[in-house]
Amino acid sequence: MAEKEKLTIVLFSGELDRALSAFMIATTAASMGMDVSMFFTFWGLNVIRKNEGKIRSKGLMRKMLNFMNRGGSKRLKLSRFHMFGLGTWMMKKLMKELNMPSIDEFITMAQQMGVKLVPCSTTCGVMGLPEDAFRSEVASLAGAAFFLNEARQSKVALFI
Amino acid sequence: MAEKEKLTIVLFSGELDRALSAFMIATTAASMGMDVSMFFTFWGLNVIRKNEGKIRSKGLMRKMLNFMNRGGSKRLKLSRFHMFGLGTWMMKKLMKELNMPSIDEFITMAQQMGVKLVPCSTTCGVMGLPEDAFRSEVASLAGAAFFLNEARQSKVALFI
Amino acid sequence: MAEKEKLTIVLFSGELDRALSAFMIATTAASMGMDVSMFFTFWGLNVIRKNEGKIRSKGLMRKMLNFMNRGGSKRLKLSRFHMFGLGTWMMKKLMKELNMPSIDEFITMAQQMGVKLVPCSTTCGVMGLPEDAFRSEVASLAGAAFFLNEARQSKVALFI
Repeated sequence: MAEKEKLTIVLFSGELDRALSAFMIATTAASMGMDVSMFFTFWGLNVIRKNEGKIRSKGLMRKMLNFMNRGGSKRLKLSRFHMFGLGTWMMKKLMKELNMPSIDEFITMAQQMGVKLVPCSTTCGVMGLPEDAFRSEVASLAGAAFFLNEARQSKVALFI
Repeated sequence: MAEKEKLTIVLFSGELDRALSAFMIATTAASMGMDVSMFFTFWGLNVIRKNEGKIRSKGLMRKMLNFMNRGGSKRLKLSRFHMFGLGTWMMKKLMKELNMPSIDEFITMAQQMGVKLVPCSTTCGVMGLPEDAFRSEVASLAGAAFFLNEARQSKVALFI
Repeated sequence: MAEKEKLTIVLFSGELDRALSAFMIATTAASMGMDVSMFFTFWGLNVIRKNEGKIRSKGLMRKMLNFMNRGGSKRLKLSRFHMFGLGTWMMKKLMKELNMPSIDEFITMAQQMGVKLVPCSTTCGVMGLPEDAFRSEVASLAGAAFFLNEARQSKVALFI
């Protein structure tokens, strides 16, 4: 049996529009029969963080960082025209009108389609994010070597 | 006959500097004999929109979005040092001095070299952009499956 | 003897977080036995510019550009939460606490591991950056054709 073609995405950005782009590509690839991994690093970790609950991180600096950088799919902003929330709200409305999935729905869909959602262990360490900061759809933390191993077996690897 | 090596670029960004980077890579690849596709999504659609003419989109929100997000190669800004237009103007001047193509010239060159310029149908739908919002060099709209199909046959695929 | 697998990275961004991401991936790949090239263009050139010394560029516009756009690893800012330097300072502190390399250390490490660090000759021309604006670890300038040649022989190519 032929092996499945692979797609690997690094999601570095925590912006709504880039996250949507990443999930559109990931779920389309999965529906085409590709084997998909998504690796979340830096602000991209915000996309797969829980919307509720508080992080108990050690040290004043991590507490400050996590106070400012709350995370969670509901807090993502557009990279342009956020306009204190108005632009982001409009974009979500327009997408709903066309029956497009929200980020929450994309995450559930992706996991059901077998897309692996992997947080970067190194940036989690720096930011003080424990494994239970992430949603239930998310797999265990892994490092850059994991990503590179996936990427070099992939037909397509994208940094978003 | 050996098949041509392929390059596929997603242009997500609507910034002058990223667009220039994308077109430099695309036209250089074409001149090296590669078969190149560029897929434009989200703010990247602005790069290949007509400079003149108004979009007639349906609904108040799309009208507002298209009022703010005008599009067209002449309206692109640098991601840094735009400085109310001064920095962007300077960058264009410096490039002209070195006989480098403008975005307009890059688009024409690219099309003449056989580069396919494809707008993303899904984001066009969300933003209310009809097919005639785009310049004459641009091909028909297509979805993420088109991009993935191109990308998985490509030696190099970049998300810009 | 089997040839080494290759990784090629374009670093377009001059932000601390994206530069860190690029160097983490590059050095991890090198430690896994991959052959790595990094190609620096636009604001990414700032990452490998010397921290000291002044650029003597020709023409008023290039002088202005280089006055604003100083470059050097010590001047990189986070893409988010820079907060007049406080956020960037905190991120550096947190990374140091975990014994992670700084950008300076990453550049030296990368070069010692055989990673090629190549500035884009075209953007150097536009910005008026001479070859001696760059650190000693950096290789000679090269154009987009060099990058494409590396990329098409690579298992993985990323635009960051």
